[in-house]
Amino acid sequence: MRDFTAQRQWASYHDPKSVLLALVGEVGELAELFQWLPADEARDMAGREPLHTRAAEEISDVLLYLILLADGLGIDLGAAANAKLTDSELRFPAGQDPGRAAPG
Amino acid sequence: MRDFTAQRQWASYHDPKSVLLALVGEVGELAELFQWLPADEARDMAGREPLHTRAAEEISDVLLYLILLADGLGIDLGAAANAKLTDSELRFPAGQDPGRAAPG
Amino acid sequence: MRDFTAQRQWASYHDPKSVLLALVGEVGELAELFQWLPADEARDMAGREPLHTRAAEEISDVLLYLILLADGLGIDLGAAANAKLTDSELRFPAGQDPGRAAPG
Amino acid sequence: MRDFTAQRQWASYHDPKSVLLALVGEVGELAELFQWLPADEARDMAGREPLHTRAAEEISDVLLYLILLADGLGIDLGAAANAKLTDSELRFPAGQDPGRAAPG
Repeated sequence: MRDFTAQRQWASYHDPKSVLLALVGEVGELAELFQWLPADEARDMAGREPLHTRAAEEISDVLLYLILLADGLGIDLGAAANAKLTDSELRFPAGQDPGRAAPG
Repeated sequence: MRDFTAQRQWASYHDPKSVLLALVGEVGELAELFQWLPADEARDMAGREPLHTRAAEEISDVLLYLILLADGLGIDLGAAANAKLTDSELRFPAGQDPGRAAPG
Repeated sequence: MRDFTAQRQWASYHDPKSVLLALVGEVGELAELFQWLPADEARDMAGREPLHTRAAEEISDVLLYLILLADGLGIDLGAAANAKLTDSELRFPAGQDPGRAAPG
Repeated sequence: MRDFTAQRQWASYHDPKSVLLALVGEVGELAELFQWLPADEARDMAGREPLHTRAAEEISDVLLYLILLADGLGIDLGAAANAKLTDSELRFPAGQDPGRAAPG
């Protein structure tokens, strides 16, 4: 992604607020894929084509902007995510209702 | 994350629309960190404490829900993101204005 | 809201991208209220306390930032929304599946 | 909007989580209009065509889903927003830095 950005001289566009809005745009496209699916059929429907490829593309777009944002801020995303997961394991003991927690 | 979810028996909560709303919640928390920062100072401010750690945490939360969503749909996120990046390299030749493209 | 903003001298913070990120933050808080509710119970649960008041507050926060954004851009929001609704009536004839349309 | 929904028999699609995801989709389209604009030119650019009409349409789409969500939950949106604004006036005395507050 650094090469991709440098070759296109797009770095000047990549201030955090702009990248964040771009990420919001991609989250919106992802939401549009799922919005009218019945909740209890969404997983099966998105596990099959044609939705599966579309979902993979939109999830990837969100990921790419997330990496772009993290990289611009000097954040080691893998380390940060592992730290957050360890923290969640401590804060949410097994057996808790996620309605009051933040699972994941 | 699979262990984390299984140990808490939270899988029944993790239908795609619910995970997507949880991701939207974390994107919102990320946006709140940046919303009132001057655009041209946001990168420097978020590169320093106390904002740096907060930003790393919120970006991680978004990432963890994104992985949870992808995993539930049987998507290989690394492969999908690499494919999307290759596709972007073909669609957006170097030198193009990102105002009309989708950089990243 | 104009008085509220002027009295606090906050107008300089209210450039469109900042207000938009603030709106995203409020949409995130709204999403957090609903994310783990069973889809088929969400309406009933949010129609009762304590969720009803919380939902009203978060929906209001989104609305207030939406009005702030529109006002800053010189948009007559009532006229624009009515025009959009009329347009939707023409584009989506009765009987169409919303899975392929944009209902509302 | 109630007539619009009833005539198309779309009410069954309009559970809160689905409408909320549809709202997220429209917020994403709104974000895409602004993401790469320079922060200090965004207001002027969106005050002129061709962006002005596009912004009015996307803001309207967000508003329409927000009204649909509120109506489905039995929320009087005008009353709720006025109450929230009054509350903000009390919580944020004039002169406060919005960086620490939630202006609007």
